[in-house]
Amino acid sequence: MDTAPEALERVLTAAAEAAGPAGVSTPAERAAWLTAAADALDAAADELIELAAGETHLPAKPRLAGELARTTFQLRLFAEVLADGAFLDATVDHADPAWPMGARPDIRRMKIAIGPVLVFAASNFPFAFSVAGGDTASALAAGCPVILKAHPGHPRLSDRTGEILREALVGAGAPEGIFAVIDGVEVGVTALKDPRIAAASFTGSVNGGRALFDIANARPVPIPFYGELGSVNPVVVTPGAAAARGAEIAAGYAGSFTLGTGQFCTKPGLLFLPEGHGMTEALRGAVEGASAGQMLTEKIQEGFTAGLSALRDVSGMRVVADGPPTLLAIGAADFVAGGETVHEECFGPSSIVVEYADVNELIALLAGLQPGLTATVQGEESEAPLVAALMPVLTALAGRLLWNDWPTGVTVSWAQQHGGPYPATTAPTTTSVGTAAIERFLRPVAWQGFPDVLLPAALREANPWQLPRRVDGKLS
Amino acid sequence: MDTAPEALERVLTAAAEAAGPAGVSTPAERAAWLTAAADALDAAADELIELAAGETHLPAKPRLAGELARTTFQLRLFAEVLADGAFLDATVDHADPAWPMGARPDIRRMKIAIGPVLVFAASNFPFAFSVAGGDTASALAAGCPVILKAHPGHPRLSDRTGEILREALVGAGAPEGIFAVIDGVEVGVTALKDPRIAAASFTGSVNGGRALFDIANARPVPIPFYGELGSVNPVVVTPGAAAARGAEIAAGYAGSFTLGTGQFCTKPGLLFLPEGHGMTEALRGAVEGASAGQMLTEKIQEGFTAGLSALRDVSGMRVVADGPPTLLAIGAADFVAGGETVHEECFGPSSIVVEYADVNELIALLAGLQPGLTATVQGEESEAPLVAALMPVLTALAGRLLWNDWPTGVTVSWAQQHGGPYPATTAPTTTSVGTAAIERFLRPVAWQGFPDVLLPAALREANPWQLPRRVDGKLS
Repeated sequence: MDTAPEALERVLTAAAEAAGPAGVSTPAERAAWLTAAADALDAAADELIELAAGETHLPAKPRLAGELARTTFQLRLFAEVLADGAFLDATVDHADPAWPMGARPDIRRMKIAIGPVLVFAASNFPFAFSVAGGDTASALAAGCPVILKAHPGHPRLSDRTGEILREALVGAGAPEGIFAVIDGVEVGVTALKDPRIAAASFTGSVNGGRALFDIANARPVPIPFYGELGSVNPVVVTPGAAAARGAEIAAGYAGSFTLGTGQFCTKPGLLFLPEGHGMTEALRGAVEGASAGQMLTEKIQEGFTAGLSALRDVSGMRVVADGPPTLLAIGAADFVAGGETVHEECFGPSSIVVEYADVNELIALLAGLQPGLTATVQGEESEAPLVAALMPVLTALAGRLLWNDWPTGVTVSWAQQHGGPYPATTAPTTTSVGTAAIERFLRPVAWQGFPDVLLPAALREANPWQLPRRVDGKLS
Repeated sequence: MDTAPEALERVLTAAAEAAGPAGVSTPAERAAWLTAAADALDAAADELIELAAGETHLPAKPRLAGELARTTFQLRLFAEVLADGAFLDATVDHADPAWPMGARPDIRRMKIAIGPVLVFAASNFPFAFSVAGGDTASALAAGCPVILKAHPGHPRLSDRTGEILREALVGAGAPEGIFAVIDGVEVGVTALKDPRIAAASFTGSVNGGRALFDIANARPVPIPFYGELGSVNPVVVTPGAAAARGAEIAAGYAGSFTLGTGQFCTKPGLLFLPEGHGMTEALRGAVEGASAGQMLTEKIQEGFTAGLSALRDVSGMRVVADGPPTLLAIGAADFVAGGETVHEECFGPSSIVVEYADVNELIALLAGLQPGLTATVQGEESEAPLVAALMPVLTALAGRLLWNDWPTGVTVSWAQQHGGPYPATTAPTTTSVGTAAIERFLRPVAWQGFPDVLLPAALREANPWQLPRRVDGKLS
């Protein structure tokens, strides 16, 4: 049921009121909030997984149990980020009368919370990209109150997760308005337009994300909008790899594009194979041996049915394995002629094999792709010169490059990058997964000439928090 | 004269072709480009300063000579940033089968150049925020080709600076398309819409910047747009400071708001004084003793005349010193009632004294201000509790906070922050001055599972560039 206007107003007011205390809370305090949240969610695992399985058609084990474990791990990893302190980017330049451009005043810079964040939850990860997911975790870690617009695909789970999360946060000392769940498409738009919201994030379709991005930018005061949208996730198989590991690659590919019934933003949508690859039978067998479950929502099922139907109608398209899961194949010239239909993401359990004649044709095909979240190479180390020739075009295409691996399965770590040029995201300088995700919800502030007593603790001369800092240009 | 369509096409093609080699150039190579550029500009100082003085009406010394020194220093400081290497944010997570959320693959992340950058130059800093200014320096440092849309206020200077800059860069080994100057409002818009442009930056008015921001976001593929727009730059004088240093503060304030004929984005536009401050005569004397030169362009002069006229008409507005430079004064209630006219920036040599009754009224007045680039406190250390009460509202307002100093004069250093919530900038998570400005033109990429030989040097196991890196969560 949509959140009522008065309830939304209360939520926005509470978030605005919480922004001050949350923003000046210490990293250690916020680490305690996040740890309490992770513990509370873990304690409620059985209840939450049952709710999730009922609403999403995803299997309780290993999928949903694994996803919840990933979610609570993520909260705890951000507690580590807070303990580490480098995210503050604390920088101290002492006054320097000899600074070459002219005397330098004492100036000190760090990052602070940007303010209340509106998070639009995803359908396809009811835990990890939803109520207590990565956007929420990173915004809370930054010191921002979060208003979570629930995905209608799992409403009861969203409410219950939100209750547990909020109680745990407030119980651990966070201000009352630190977190709330709201429901309804128009309610989300109203919140996005509200001047009390300082930033927003979204995981979902290109159409939905672009519409919200446009609204965020059209505000009298535009705000940062971090949309994680569509991605075709090309996989390139070199001639050497096709010859050496054809059956293994076929099995890995089928497993990756059918995982979660193809409902991952990193699903490999295109497989580039050398002509004469001899892998068709292995591919057919692997795909026919894979299963496809019920999709997350009826709307997603309808979109997939329509998308697959359009793909089948593309001139030159062949059906390798009918399903779902469905594997299609097409030659290079027909792929190019197929335009947007073959170049844009089809969300669900299908993928397309594209056959290339030689490396020049392969590079030309890759150069014509939409950018996305990932690009993968299946190759042999003995082919390093060939692969090196592919790397520039692949790097231009994606935020994460993979070697002899599959793009589904996104680890949460310090080095993770989940983003990329549009339409992978609306903010290509950022990531929505991994510890760097916190940077989206921080803004830098400099203090010039202040006495120590008026500086934030992170910038005081004695470095009371023992932070890693850059002092007079040198990292300490 | 506007750049012809064929010439613009050549420039865009050359920039796109340069993006590959510039992007994979080493930081050491780019440091050599920037140093060569700084040397060439310094060598041409006499010629450039003469051109600038003729076109901008700004005095050759100390102003233009100082600004050119600042500009070449800035290029050299980015060479230091490149030598330092921390900007790459190199992060290595080794494979870890025991990673709590599930086995972690080897994953390594660093930042790479975003691609060709379009820079819109400012009118008011013909060197430091123009052809070879901070946006150009930081984008080149990132490895991005730059197309510079010249400001029509100093066309000959722009052409000549561009020639010297381009020759020096290419002479030092940069690719041919590394840099070009274009002219014309519509030419700039055409370039901004071109798919080969990956990011854009702007320094100028709220109206102009917002129009370009809207164009950048309306593209089929939207791009990051870094606009540095308007700022009122409030200064708060505490009762103790007014009593102890009234005359000194009056002199400093008059000097700051009339510097450069009031044509700085950090000009203090509002001075909050306690009622009964007794500083009126000192202020009048200081302002009457200051001078105002010819403004940069006729358009800017017209804007100032109209803005000042509107301010004079605001109910309750008093003229303390007529000019230009012009000092106005108003009571708190009339200031609030004055709406946008008094709350928005008036670019030029004028400023407004606002009188407050007590700290509660002061906080309410500050809470109603537009955010901006700076907020300043003139206070006494003995008033620390009072100032501490002001800090939350001031921090919410600005990207840089100053204590007993003046906001004009923006040092270029590691800790500088020149930005803030809209309308200070369209990208509040970034800065346009200081070493962190490079972050605007970089995007992160992760490499998962690659053999060492196929990794970028910055991420290889042996750390051949001796970079500061985070390895398995620990800073090294």
